[in-house]
Amino acid sequence: MTGDAPIPSRPSPPTIRDVAREAGVTVGTASKALNGRGQLRTETRDRVRAAAEYLEFRPNELVKSLLRGRTYTVGLLSSAQGRFSLPLLTGIEDALGTAEIMVFFCYVDADSQQERNNIASLLAKQVDGLIVMGGRTDPRRPIDVGRSRVPIVYAYTHIDDPNALCLLPDDAQGARLAIDHLVGLGRRRIAHITGPDDFQAVHERRAGVDDALAAHGLSLPPNRFWGGSWSEGGGYQAVDELLDHEPDIDAIFCGNDQLARGAIDGLRERGKRVPADIAVVGFDNWEDLAEAARPPLTTVDMNLHDLGQEAARHLLAMVAGETPAGTHRLPCTLVVRASSG
Amino acid sequence: MTGDAPIPSRPSPPTIRDVAREAGVTVGTASKALNGRGQLRTETRDRVRAAAEYLEFRPNELVKSLLRGRTYTVGLLSSAQGRFSLPLLTGIEDALGTAEIMVFFCYVDADSQQERNNIASLLAKQVDGLIVMGGRTDPRRPIDVGRSRVPIVYAYTHIDDPNALCLLPDDAQGARLAIDHLVGLGRRRIAHITGPDDFQAVHERRAGVDDALAAHGLSLPPNRFWGGSWSEGGGYQAVDELLDHEPDIDAIFCGNDQLARGAIDGLRERGKRVPADIAVVGFDNWEDLAEAARPPLTTVDMNLHDLGQEAARHLLAMVAGETPAGTHRLPCTLVVRASSG
Repeated sequence: MTGDAPIPSRPSPPTIRDVAREAGVTVGTASKALNGRGQLRTETRDRVRAAAEYLEFRPNELVKSLLRGRTYTVGLLSSAQGRFSLPLLTGIEDALGTAEIMVFFCYVDADSQQERNNIASLLAKQVDGLIVMGGRTDPRRPIDVGRSRVPIVYAYTHIDDPNALCLLPDDAQGARLAIDHLVGLGRRRIAHITGPDDFQAVHERRAGVDDALAAHGLSLPPNRFWGGSWSEGGGYQAVDELLDHEPDIDAIFCGNDQLARGAIDGLRERGKRVPADIAVVGFDNWEDLAEAARPPLTTVDMNLHDLGQEAARHLLAMVAGETPAGTHRLPCTLVVRASSG
Repeated sequence: MTGDAPIPSRPSPPTIRDVAREAGVTVGTASKALNGRGQLRTETRDRVRAAAEYLEFRPNELVKSLLRGRTYTVGLLSSAQGRFSLPLLTGIEDALGTAEIMVFFCYVDADSQQERNNIASLLAKQVDGLIVMGGRTDPRRPIDVGRSRVPIVYAYTHIDDPNALCLLPDDAQGARLAIDHLVGLGRRRIAHITGPDDFQAVHERRAGVDDALAAHGLSLPPNRFWGGSWSEGGGYQAVDELLDHEPDIDAIFCGNDQLARGAIDGLRERGKRVPADIAVVGFDNWEDLAEAARPPLTTVDMNLHDLGQEAARHLLAMVAGETPAGTHRLPCTLVVRASSG
């Protein structure tokens, strides 16, 4: 794939020296003109700026960083490879881009040697701060930055340290939204199907279900609960098992959208109409899946783009000297589509 | 969220001066010991290294970069927000991480002011190279880096310049794999359903279908072709229309996995057995979707993680002075599941 043409020598980028020569001034004058310092005639300043523009002179950020003691860079350690990572990532990007800060992106397994190597590289690059992004909301071990006091924000994961700042979606509040919505539609025999027991999100969402049902004088009997997987196949199987024991269920709140898709398919094949007989609500607002459901799926949105933005804004505040701390849960919203009529 | 505790002063990271003081040597000796230069007693060298380790001294990468003329950073301009971007991104990361190069990630709209701003920021940070990642394989305008000779690789997009290096999946070859597989299973009346006409991938895949069918003495009559959307709803509708005109179709090759999911659902509801009556093959190997299909979906994988790795490897070769060029299409593979028996 390498061409036969001679390798062109790559010209060095123009320096302040080249700008001074082009403008016919000393390096000191060129520097003053470009930095807006010192007493210079307008004509001189304009000539230097025109020369800089003509030469496409870009002040060397590395030199500027050394002088300022800040690099205007942030390290992002992401152990999230799934679909959750993209809205978080673009949210972080949006907030930092506005502040003209660039993001070093490192995809790593949490708590691995690779993560430790990346942390060392980021610290050597003198990043102004670190964002640690999880692949699930469960707790993780703190990252080890040695004696460095670099600010750290944990997003979509959390650690057991009251001085750390951790941002999570409010899973329990999201589940309450779903239940309140179903009860508001007149549903009373509500079932809940959800993922594996070792996800903290499963327990948070279940707590929200129980709270909201209790507030309406309702409850979740064991026959209306199914847990075990996050897959479409799980939702399909859950519907079969639930309806065998509780044929009069009038709504199902699902712990994610894949479960909801499987549940809707299972209900259709058992001759149940959604939402006329049984309303279905999911969790995640995974749009490709939610909109393609038949009928389209009502679901809880974790607003992960906003969560990414918040993480970045907090990091900027910490770089500026603030010391926010604690584990904060940010609100979810409900996106209503036809599956709940 | 800001605590009331006094803001702790952030201690500066240790310098070579601190290491020298700790080891009881001059700064020059400490520098020689850490860089492995000069004539020093082993005992002195060991004492300096122990002091550096104790103080967690990290040589300032910014200073090293200025001296070397390379920053060991790469800029990634991504206009891909969809699921395709993650395997590309992790592939790029894997290849660059091995070379101890860090990635500045910029999520941008192609050809926007925001993209131009990010390019200026990346050039000011003296990145060693740029990777431009598309959201779809269609051509785009070249990015403008002015007079800079920074190496650039285009991945999952391409530009109209024979001197540029562009990497794409081989859509036509992927489609040929699917058709050869179906013909090998004895299918002869093969239909093709696909996305909107303004995607280059639609035309590449169609060309592969025509070539492979012709090689087997078969063809694609107009009644066995449907194009218009990438969605599940499209696949569901396509099956309805195709079977009304051509009830004896024995296989459907779909331009993506969402179309294939919709097609499988449509076939089931029309009483057709997959694959006994009609085999179905998708494109993308979107695992969440493909594995949850009933039956699980045979589909073409674009190997985007490998494509990301290749893009990074080529960029490293260019940084080292090589000048690869041209638009290269990397091979797809077929993942066989139950939908094609």
